[in-house]
Amino acid sequence: MMTFPLMAEKECLGVVMALNKIGAEHFTPEDEALFHKYMNFAQVITLQHYTAYMWNVESRRSQVLLWSASKVFEELTDIERQFHKALYTVRTYLQCERYSVGLLDMTKEKEFYDEWPVKLGDVEPYKGPKTPDGREINFYKIIDYLLEGKEEIKVIPGPPADHWALASGLPTYVAENGFICNMMNVAADDYFTFQKEAVDETGFVIKNVLSLPIVNKKEEIVGIATFFNRKDGKPFDEHDEQITEALTQFLGWSVLNCDTYDKLNRMEWRKDIAQEMLMYQTRCTTDELQSILNTKEKFDADPEDCDQKEMYKLLRANIPVADNVNGENLYLFSFSDFPVTEFDLIKAGIRMFFELGVVEKFKVPAETLTRWMYTVRKGYRAITYHNWRHGFNVGHTMFCLLQTGKLRKYYTDLDAFAMVAAAFCHDIDHRGTNNLYQTKSASPLARLHGSSIMERHHLEYSKTLMGEESLNIFCNLQKRQFENVQHLFDVCIIATDLALYFKKRTMFQNIVNATEPMTDEKEATAFVSNNPIRKEIVMAMMMTGCDLSAITKPWEVQSKVALMVAAEFWEQGDLERSVLDQQPIPMMDRNCAEQLPKMQCGFIDFVCSFVYKEFSRFHKEIQPMFDGLNNNRAHWNELAEVYNAKMKAIEDEKKKLEEEEAKKAGGGGEGGKSKTCTIC
Amino acid sequence: MMTFPLMAEKECLGVVMALNKIGAEHFTPEDEALFHKYMNFAQVITLQHYTAYMWNVESRRSQVLLWSASKVFEELTDIERQFHKALYTVRTYLQCERYSVGLLDMTKEKEFYDEWPVKLGDVEPYKGPKTPDGREINFYKIIDYLLEGKEEIKVIPGPPADHWALASGLPTYVAENGFICNMMNVAADDYFTFQKEAVDETGFVIKNVLSLPIVNKKEEIVGIATFFNRKDGKPFDEHDEQITEALTQFLGWSVLNCDTYDKLNRMEWRKDIAQEMLMYQTRCTTDELQSILNTKEKFDADPEDCDQKEMYKLLRANIPVADNVNGENLYLFSFSDFPVTEFDLIKAGIRMFFELGVVEKFKVPAETLTRWMYTVRKGYRAITYHNWRHGFNVGHTMFCLLQTGKLRKYYTDLDAFAMVAAAFCHDIDHRGTNNLYQTKSASPLARLHGSSIMERHHLEYSKTLMGEESLNIFCNLQKRQFENVQHLFDVCIIATDLALYFKKRTMFQNIVNATEPMTDEKEATAFVSNNPIRKEIVMAMMMTGCDLSAITKPWEVQSKVALMVAAEFWEQGDLERSVLDQQPIPMMDRNCAEQLPKMQCGFIDFVCSFVYKEFSRFHKEIQPMFDGLNNNRAHWNELAEVYNAKMKAIEDEKKKLEEEEAKKAGGGGEGGKSKTCTIC
Repeated sequence: MMTFPLMAEKECLGVVMALNKIGAEHFTPEDEALFHKYMNFAQVITLQHYTAYMWNVESRRSQVLLWSASKVFEELTDIERQFHKALYTVRTYLQCERYSVGLLDMTKEKEFYDEWPVKLGDVEPYKGPKTPDGREINFYKIIDYLLEGKEEIKVIPGPPADHWALASGLPTYVAENGFICNMMNVAADDYFTFQKEAVDETGFVIKNVLSLPIVNKKEEIVGIATFFNRKDGKPFDEHDEQITEALTQFLGWSVLNCDTYDKLNRMEWRKDIAQEMLMYQTRCTTDELQSILNTKEKFDADPEDCDQKEMYKLLRANIPVADNVNGENLYLFSFSDFPVTEFDLIKAGIRMFFELGVVEKFKVPAETLTRWMYTVRKGYRAITYHNWRHGFNVGHTMFCLLQTGKLRKYYTDLDAFAMVAAAFCHDIDHRGTNNLYQTKSASPLARLHGSSIMERHHLEYSKTLMGEESLNIFCNLQKRQFENVQHLFDVCIIATDLALYFKKRTMFQNIVNATEPMTDEKEATAFVSNNPIRKEIVMAMMMTGCDLSAITKPWEVQSKVALMVAAEFWEQGDLERSVLDQQPIPMMDRNCAEQLPKMQCGFIDFVCSFVYKEFSRFHKEIQPMFDGLNNNRAHWNELAEVYNAKMKAIEDEKKKLEEEEAKKAGGGGEGGKSKTCTIC
Repeated sequence: MMTFPLMAEKECLGVVMALNKIGAEHFTPEDEALFHKYMNFAQVITLQHYTAYMWNVESRRSQVLLWSASKVFEELTDIERQFHKALYTVRTYLQCERYSVGLLDMTKEKEFYDEWPVKLGDVEPYKGPKTPDGREINFYKIIDYLLEGKEEIKVIPGPPADHWALASGLPTYVAENGFICNMMNVAADDYFTFQKEAVDETGFVIKNVLSLPIVNKKEEIVGIATFFNRKDGKPFDEHDEQITEALTQFLGWSVLNCDTYDKLNRMEWRKDIAQEMLMYQTRCTTDELQSILNTKEKFDADPEDCDQKEMYKLLRANIPVADNVNGENLYLFSFSDFPVTEFDLIKAGIRMFFELGVVEKFKVPAETLTRWMYTVRKGYRAITYHNWRHGFNVGHTMFCLLQTGKLRKYYTDLDAFAMVAAAFCHDIDHRGTNNLYQTKSASPLARLHGSSIMERHHLEYSKTLMGEESLNIFCNLQKRQFENVQHLFDVCIIATDLALYFKKRTMFQNIVNATEPMTDEKEATAFVSNNPIRKEIVMAMMMTGCDLSAITKPWEVQSKVALMVAAEFWEQGDLERSVLDQQPIPMMDRNCAEQLPKMQCGFIDFVCSFVYKEFSRFHKEIQPMFDGLNNNRAHWNELAEVYNAKMKAIEDEKKKLEEEEAKKAGGGGEGGKSKTCTIC
């Protein structure tokens, strides 16, 4: 016998044997040399064959991975669909006659009431096979790919235990142990009994089987993939195992996507549930609606059943007249909300839309307008400054700028409608803390919105209200008009972020400068109203003018409001100290309360003054606001000087005491420092 | 010259040439034959070499894919981290000296206010390179992997345009066109000027470069991967391109995971925002708290600053006495809520916890108890039947079963506390429609909860309230006690799903049967109280007894309540018709209103009767409920008989008319059918 190993690197691929030399007792050394020479060549050919096969294996493996990946990342979906898409797309690379995937029930815990009969001993506890992580093994679905003959895919939901794909017990065994099982000769196997005859009407007979668990990243077996009958009739080899293992491993890992899909859906449903509940709790109720629009009392009917014209009449009759809301005139910049109740402010808000003439023009149903205004009011929280009164005041100043300030000429009726509505909403659901606090406390609002955090929230909430049919005051607009209103809300509400104020200052000033020398009013009007960007810039600056308008109010109003603003700042300062463990800036530090007048002067000089000065230059009708501002500036300055004088007196007193101290210490030497050492 | 092509299948790998035969003019046919023989062998060796190389390429490709996949599916994370993890893990398979990934800004649209200066013409519009989908090309981060010498990873956020990795313009070119660029000889390239000298302090010099776009499934270029200097000094070939293309393709697709991560986070923040707003809107306000616990009036202080003992006194003084709530006795099963206002029911609810003796025992702060009870009340919607009055009644009946029905002996004080609290919460935020309606209308609640849909919602909401510090009546319990309370809430609230009622019937009956023959009360008590499962079963059946207790109330109460239940059913029926376009079942069909007495009898016989009969057998003190039930059964039956008689009369009348008709038609033939044809 002569033998020769056929090697691939260190692996032996086979052995060639020459047996029983013909015509002699044994092989000669010459035979050996010749054999060796031939075998060297055989070795090269074998190696080539082997390498080519391995190239094919690796190439199929990378194709299987690439194609599965292409499907797995196509969309987020559930495990069934994802497995199906991936398994179907790789079918040509698997080179077997049939394969199936069995999906396992992932339920770990039972409902407490289903455990009762077991715990009471009335029912036997489960004793069947379990996965390594303790689940009862239950295949809830089989997807079966038949590639022999014409391609066919069968989906078997809730397969019976005696289904041919399960009956042998192999998938259950794999699910129980997590092993890869390669059954080279099914007929000869005595551990598992596979069906010997054709398994179904296609006549398919099982010859050899390769079964693998699909394991997710949490090490849980989520399913079993089973491959039947290699195409060339041979049993599956270790390279087939490599390819299918890469596939099942990839599929197992990719379950992360399905879990995420599920998580995302659940999160969305929870969000929807919370939003619906929120809307139920904040929407103006029937009783609240009737408290303003008392249709039941008047017509003994629900608002939906009443005539709109009659309703407008009723509504107008129920709301205060324009120039007298508890003695305050809605058309004056100096209007004060203090004498008016929060409830009456809702009515005054409604009144302004009638004054603008937009209710009838845009067919706003009276009950929708009332409900919306009431709901906006309820959207404001009971906080120190940024409450409904502030929301109302900003809406009111917008009304005054348009009507009394004559800025309306640049805008359409729909613009004016949207601007006043946006102004009412501009701080809805404010929590009494600013954007920086949201960022520092990493609130969900800050995580959601990258910039203009609170403003984006006020905007989103305003739009949510618009999205509710029963609250949508813009319900009778055309689509294009409605989109325009949405954009105006964006511009108006985002504009109230003071951080953006400095970006628009110069642009606004340029507009004022450009119109100032124009003698023809028409020309000046057209300069703004014909240019959508200039319209937006003026609008944005109007919002700032409204938001800061408390600073222009009569001193008795301003002095009260300034204290409320300060009090809210101080509350934030307290939170910064207690929650964030940080020292607040002086403006928010209640220990710096005495510096308020000085800070007010600074705020007027560096922020507010520009706004009202430029607006007064733009439209002389707005001069009262600038006058109010200057009057308040004088008051604050006076208080600041009182404080300064007090500080100076204290400082002088201190200096005097120090000097006396120095004198006492015996004058002179080292700048009057005492050389005596005192023990504290 | 003799030549020979070296072929791999149809591809020519190279050509061997033998030039200028030595000592002769040209090659002879013998030379040719010999050359051919040798070349056949050379062909085999070349092929082997080529195949081995390709095996290596494919094997590196599948490794690159597997390793990237293993990282990509490890966790959901952002694009930077995901790319980094994947790129780092495949480094050995890439066989180059250095590689980097540049991440592109994905922003498509600018803020409207940033567009103003451009639209006004003050600022030049962007004219630089853009991606195929129209984004300005801006690399916001470079991650740089240096594998030469000691491994090093550099992260360059906001890299300057003249950073060596960008300066050549190649990444921008790739981002602009989406091409794969293989620069075989960097020094010779005149389109891109790569840095000729060392790029950094490591002394690394660029020799050849392979750059590929990373494209997501939406066909957007999200980044650029660039590979420098193949390890063996040769330029990158098409096989390197294959490997890196597989990698970048995979990375690009995997961006789905990062996008999902982002989406999931945003969804969670939105959910958190909505839930916080909801809690703000539904939590008992300071004013509401004071309306019951008027500490301000009494002590001129906030509840937090008052002594708890004084507070308990104050609270007891403010709530109705036990046996007289507007003339109704809290200890009687026949208690009716009708004479009591909804506000006073809140007080009565609080009262019962004092009566149970759990307030002081479990140190429930008076203000927390008040706030919680008030908030539970606000959690019920203003619907026809499943409103706060129903919630209160169920809590009240639980109280009566424990106290008057003497079932308390099986339970601890904490059990009793939790059971009454859970009973109050059991239908919170009910919307007047049942589980089937949720499923049919595919409401978010039905999507979230697979079974016991509404009950799981009531439970979740109850637990949300418990999760709020200011509302948590169980705040002074130990962790284990608190977990026990949570479990009791699960049992009690889920038990109100009538679909589960039939599961527990027999188990409950077995307990009653077992205790009935016991003469020793202690033994009977121990039989239940020593077995946690029996305790739960009795508890669950108590909840059913509470939920259905309206059927046991005095007839004047029951007759009113039954109409409210029916009215809510009819409203659901209306919705089924209008929203789902389905015909409601008779119980929910207002056209079947006359059948109400008959249906009530059926409901009593098939559902309710068992509950109260068994409870009366269990504890004779509960007999009044069964008596009440039987009394109502008699009333409903009487009404049903009136209806039946009326129906019979109509039927008789009809029959009579038909008979007369038949007679008139001239009797006989074809069962009295008229043969005359009438035109309608």
